Amino acid sequence: MKSRTFDDPDYAEAVVDLLGLLAYGELQGFNRMAADSTMAPNLRQQAQTAAMAATEFRQFERLRERLVTLGQDPEAAMAPFVSSIDSYHGTTAPNDWLEGLVKIYVGDGIARDFYLEVSYFVDPETAGLIRSVFADRGQADFVVTSVRQAIAADPTLAGRLALWARRLVGEALSQAQRVSVERESLAALLIEGEEGLDLEGVGQLFGRLTNRHTERMATLGLAP
Amino acid sequence: MKSRTFDDPDYAEAVVDLLGLLAYGELQGFNRMAADSTMAPNLRQQAQTAAMAATEFRQFERLRERLVTLGQDPEAAMAPFVSSIDSYHGTTAPNDWLEGLVKIYVGDGIARDFYLEVSYFVDPETAGLIRSVFADRGQADFVVTSVRQAIAADPTLAGRLALWARRLVGEALSQAQRVSVERESLAALLIEGEEGLDLEGVGQLFGRLTNRHTERMATLGLAP
Repeated sequence: MKSRTFDDPDYAEAVVDLLGLLAYGELQGFNRMAADSTMAPNLRQQAQTAAMAATEFRQFERLRERLVTLGQDPEAAMAPFVSSIDSYHGTTAPNDWLEGLVKIYVGDGIARDFYLEVSYFVDPETAGLIRSVFADRGQADFVVTSVRQAIAADPTLAGRLALWARRLVGEALSQAQRVSVERESLAALLIEGEEGLDLEGVGQLFGRLTNRHTERMATLGLAP
Repeated sequence: MKSRTFDDPDYAEAVVDLLGLLAYGELQGFNRMAADSTMAPNLRQQAQTAAMAATEFRQFERLRERLVTLGQDPEAAMAPFVSSIDSYHGTTAPNDWLEGLVKIYVGDGIARDFYLEVSYFVDPETAGLIRSVFADRGQADFVVTSVRQAIAADPTLAGRLALWARRLVGEALSQAQRVSVERESLAALLIEGEEGLDLEGVGQLFGRLTNRHTERMATLGLAP
């Protein structure tokens, strides 16, 4: 990767891959949250979960529009990531609404942090879009309240949900690893060229992701 | 029903019932379309179906906001209609994406026409909200294209989908009948007082609904 501008075909390919990955992630996030909403114990919580799904769809639309603006076919850009993201969701189908909430908060939280990290390696326009799409608008605050209330009512839940969260992280890392192997362009975005990370930098990035994950677990009242 | 203003407690109750019915219908419309979208044959059509679901959710939010503005608890207002609407969806779960599309176009089309008819029996503000929420924005145009293309590719589909559409109408009428018996306030909205419909008026209303349904079936290329 010679430069981080669209003049460099390697860079252009990497950005299209990145936008395709994010777009398909949001589209499936929409699907899964919509499905989770039907497991909510009451209509108020069903509507709150559905609202998060609707937000995912708006985020998908913004990413798709960017691909169209770049002259790309959004479906073709998403296609390489269908298998990984579907595998992640297939192996982490929540058994109940609470597991769905923890998945949204913990799983999507790690993904969002990672995408925000990646935004430092792309051109300003792409970076601005990613930061805007993945900005934390506090919509998941009700997740925190709901999970903490559930644990207060039944403390045995804390162990089960903490175990569930660890499984989510494991599956997410496993699919992230697969994507980085299958799509060299994306890995190159992070590690190639002068602006790329060295080994120490990669370690620091993982450290930041881990710290924020631990904070989220604590916020939910779960052991990391 | 002495007058169609909120001073009349019967009228106020009827409007809250109406908004609760519409809001729950949209919330479940969101759920079902989101689920249908996952059966789409490709990502483009999946995204188009998901877009309709996201629109349903925005419509739900507007109806819910109106209930809140009226000082009502949206969940309490929706509760009386959960059973009927869930029964409708439970008996009309699509077996594939095309059946889902026909359900969205034909089933939701009849419901929308009916709600627009009801809008002539409510105060101007409620009427304006209903007309705006249920305005046909052409979003379902892709349904027509998709169904017609599928039938062109496999003409035997036309018979199965026409049968399916008739079942949808039957189930919808059956639940509408149940709602009108269980919630007298809603039936009263249409037939009580000077502004209410007489028997001939009810017949004409059904005639208009039937005509528009027949037109929709023709648009899809299905025998009514």
